[in-house]
Amino acid sequence: MEISPFLNKELPESLYMQLYHWIRKEIEDGRLMPGTKMPSIRELTANLNVSRNTVETAYQQLQAEGYLESIPKSGVWVAEIEKPVWHLPPTEHPIIPEKQASPKVAVDFEYGNVDLDKFPIKQWKKCLTDAIDQQNNWLFQYGNKIGEFSLRKEIAHYLQQSRGVRATPEQILITAGTQTSISVLCRLLSLNGETVAMEEPGYLGVRTVFKDEGCHLKPIPLEHDGLSVKHLQTSMAKAIYVTPSHQFPYGMVLPVAKRIQLLKWAYQTNGYIFEDDYDGEFRYRGQPIPSLKSLDEEGRVIYLGTLSKCFLPTARLSYMVLPPSLMELLLQKFAEYNQSVSPIIQRAVAQFMKSGEFEKHIRRMRKWYQRKHQVLLTSIQQYMDTRVSIIGEKSGLHILLKLNGMTASKLIERGLSHGVKVYSPARFWLLPNDEIESIIMLGFGGLSLEEIEQGIRILASCLPKDLEKKGGPPLR
Amino acid sequence: MEISPFLNKELPESLYMQLYHWIRKEIEDGRLMPGTKMPSIRELTANLNVSRNTVETAYQQLQAEGYLESIPKSGVWVAEIEKPVWHLPPTEHPIIPEKQASPKVAVDFEYGNVDLDKFPIKQWKKCLTDAIDQQNNWLFQYGNKIGEFSLRKEIAHYLQQSRGVRATPEQILITAGTQTSISVLCRLLSLNGETVAMEEPGYLGVRTVFKDEGCHLKPIPLEHDGLSVKHLQTSMAKAIYVTPSHQFPYGMVLPVAKRIQLLKWAYQTNGYIFEDDYDGEFRYRGQPIPSLKSLDEEGRVIYLGTLSKCFLPTARLSYMVLPPSLMELLLQKFAEYNQSVSPIIQRAVAQFMKSGEFEKHIRRMRKWYQRKHQVLLTSIQQYMDTRVSIIGEKSGLHILLKLNGMTASKLIERGLSHGVKVYSPARFWLLPNDEIESIIMLGFGGLSLEEIEQGIRILASCLPKDLEKKGGPPLR
Ligand SMILES: Cc1ncc(COP(=O)(O)O)c(C=O)c1O
Ligand SMILES: Cc1ncc(COP(=O)(O)O)c(C=O)c1O
Repeated sequence: MEISPFLNKELPESLYMQLYHWIRKEIEDGRLMPGTKMPSIRELTANLNVSRNTVETAYQQLQAEGYLESIPKSGVWVAEIEKPVWHLPPTEHPIIPEKQASPKVAVDFEYGNVDLDKFPIKQWKKCLTDAIDQQNNWLFQYGNKIGEFSLRKEIAHYLQQSRGVRATPEQILITAGTQTSISVLCRLLSLNGETVAMEEPGYLGVRTVFKDEGCHLKPIPLEHDGLSVKHLQTSMAKAIYVTPSHQFPYGMVLPVAKRIQLLKWAYQTNGYIFEDDYDGEFRYRGQPIPSLKSLDEEGRVIYLGTLSKCFLPTARLSYMVLPPSLMELLLQKFAEYNQSVSPIIQRAVAQFMKSGEFEKHIRRMRKWYQRKHQVLLTSIQQYMDTRVSIIGEKSGLHILLKLNGMTASKLIERGLSHGVKVYSPARFWLLPNDEIESIIMLGFGGLSLEEIEQGIRILASCLPKDLEKKGGPPLR
Repeated sequence: MEISPFLNKELPESLYMQLYHWIRKEIEDGRLMPGTKMPSIRELTANLNVSRNTVETAYQQLQAEGYLESIPKSGVWVAEIEKPVWHLPPTEHPIIPEKQASPKVAVDFEYGNVDLDKFPIKQWKKCLTDAIDQQNNWLFQYGNKIGEFSLRKEIAHYLQQSRGVRATPEQILITAGTQTSISVLCRLLSLNGETVAMEEPGYLGVRTVFKDEGCHLKPIPLEHDGLSVKHLQTSMAKAIYVTPSHQFPYGMVLPVAKRIQLLKWAYQTNGYIFEDDYDGEFRYRGQPIPSLKSLDEEGRVIYLGTLSKCFLPTARLSYMVLPPSLMELLLQKFAEYNQSVSPIIQRAVAQFMKSGEFEKHIRRMRKWYQRKHQVLLTSIQQYMDTRVSIIGEKSGLHILLKLNGMTASKLIERGLSHGVKVYSPARFWLLPNDEIESIIMLGFGGLSLEEIEQGIRILASCLPKDLEKKGGPPLR
């Protein structure tokens, strides 16, 4: 226990009395709790730079009054006083109720969680401790501003092999979450006051950053096969944020023809494309389509990746690939900024990638999520039949359901009373829209096969029964 | 190895030829390297959603031409071709030379490093792995937006015990470095376009953030005992950033009288005080002085802390204590922002604090840095005598030296040619100033006692010899 009383020689009260009063008040106010060991007289004398006598006299007085207790060969302790009054200062009122799962929720289709059963926890722990072993000095220094080289190297390799993105480690910036990436881009490209386009609906986390960075947002409507490039062409946008591998939250994949059109738009207008490939690893049907970045020949695409879906949201690690000229600009503009991702995490992830565990994990998870996804679709078909239709069923860790004959808020309410939590994706729309009220969003990444089946079964019992039960074509 | 060729049924070329050409090009361009194992025919068929025949024919062709090699019971491998042409795409030119210590530097007085000998590396590793054990689910979810509760609780306790700051965990925001704290404050208090005061000289890392957030900076000159409150009073500033425990980089401690004046300024003008207590733990002489926050009765002080000095810069973990009303505003304004520090690091640090290791570490380091500091001062006195004077010698992990009869840049240059690196603190001044050119900065946190002594000895030999060697009063 260290204490830091404030003693002032200039005050009329003697130093020993100041010390006595201070300690007594600490004990009375519950800041020094019974059973706490006090610093020794020698220690306190040295720390406070006062005479030994000052401390000794104060301690004696406090012992005499029962505030402190001296135990031979053990030291001086705060004594049990009659009414212990331990309390923290009251806040105006409780500010944030700590998150706790309501006990009644049996199945929670929250989006954002990932699978916990198949995670190679041992290997990850080994990487964490191995990372700390490897060398000594980096642990005690500020790391590389754009991120640890070993990690950027592994990411470059990974992107090339599995996403067709060619980049050198020097083009990669490590960031602490996709929002950080977007914020950096806004500053790098001076987007304050400029128009930035986004798919409508689109990811709120990113839209919030654009807004806070002073961008004017231009929502681009979706067609059945992704954003309307025509609308983009007349938008005057300087940049567009897109989710081509798996539109968020609708789930369609942007076809190659549209990708080419999008690139043309960028080439012709000197626009920038921010390609958020947040869950591109999890694609269950159809052919892979090359990333926009891999098709880009003029350095207009900035590729954004994250470990939140394919690895762990608690890594809080994301990255972007910048064209070399923009990276140079970044190194100038952000010369005085420190990297904000812990090099410990960075090196552990690099280790995890290098060992081959990362690719193995992704392969395993793709299969596993595919099964979950399959169970989800089958359960919906079996229990919900024509009372819903599924939107965006080829990939990712969530789907949307369009309800026939019931509003989303009604189903959310009924589901909750039956222990199943589902969500409205309404907040992902910038503009009001009639369709929103009949759509719910189901995330399934963190649920077991049983939970998915059970959740859908219960949810189906909350849907209206009155629709004629048709056989209809199977959903897939 | 996964590969992601792009095949298109609409193209005139057959799918197998497309696949053949794609793989061949990957090998020729060095993206698929000799010795790489190819996906099996079965795997690739499934991944690409094409017929088995397509893949088989392409593989056969490539084997026939020597690009691939089939090894029975092992699989299909990329063969050694005659001229391996492995190359990454050329960047325009090398962008960032990876940091490497120049081999000639024997002693580097860089500021920012911390001690590596006495760090309890085993305990820290244990905390990292234990943190991951504790419970399961948090690892797979986005964490608490303001930071993990367990960490905020430990920090609240620590601040109360050792810095006299009373705060509930609900008032604490975890951030990924002091710059992040400052950026959040600028947005929270809408400081864009407002005047913000800073000590002159002051910490460049923070000044850069204020600038980038659109603040007008008002430099407040220093007096021998810290910032000139008079200048602040006429500054029209809405907020001031200060380093009262240990002025950065000058090193003086703000006396209580000035602290009280500073608080009065805040109360009278509704100003805010950002108190950066970055190395308040390391105080070697004189009495502790209460933090501004502990004296603040009207919620005008925002206390900023970091683990970069008292623990590890690679934790990339800092925090601030906000008055409850500001915390509420923050929860509204930043409702859509994710926490950017990895909960893994947060929980490991919480564990480290809870186990008592943290306080033990700080106590140990305070003694150890005090010894280093002592050796530094003694060496300077012994070898450099009156050719320099020391500025700010009571605490912290650095000092300044004022040179008599030589410019800083000359000494930096001479030192370097003798293998000793020292730095100019010039960048910490906002405005030009004659004094700057005769001051150097010595960080000693990461150096051993021997290195400190050796470094100063060598540096002294670079100073001009022509001054009369006086005995003079000892420096302490
Ligand atoms: C579209 C989209 N991009 C990115 C992310 C990941 O963000 P982060 O890297 O901050 O975890 C998400 C997470 O929900 C998302 O939905
Ligand atoms: C004045 C001051 N504040 C804070 C910091 C620490 O910043 P961070 O928390 O980003 O490591 C430093 C580091 O050099 C500093 O000099």
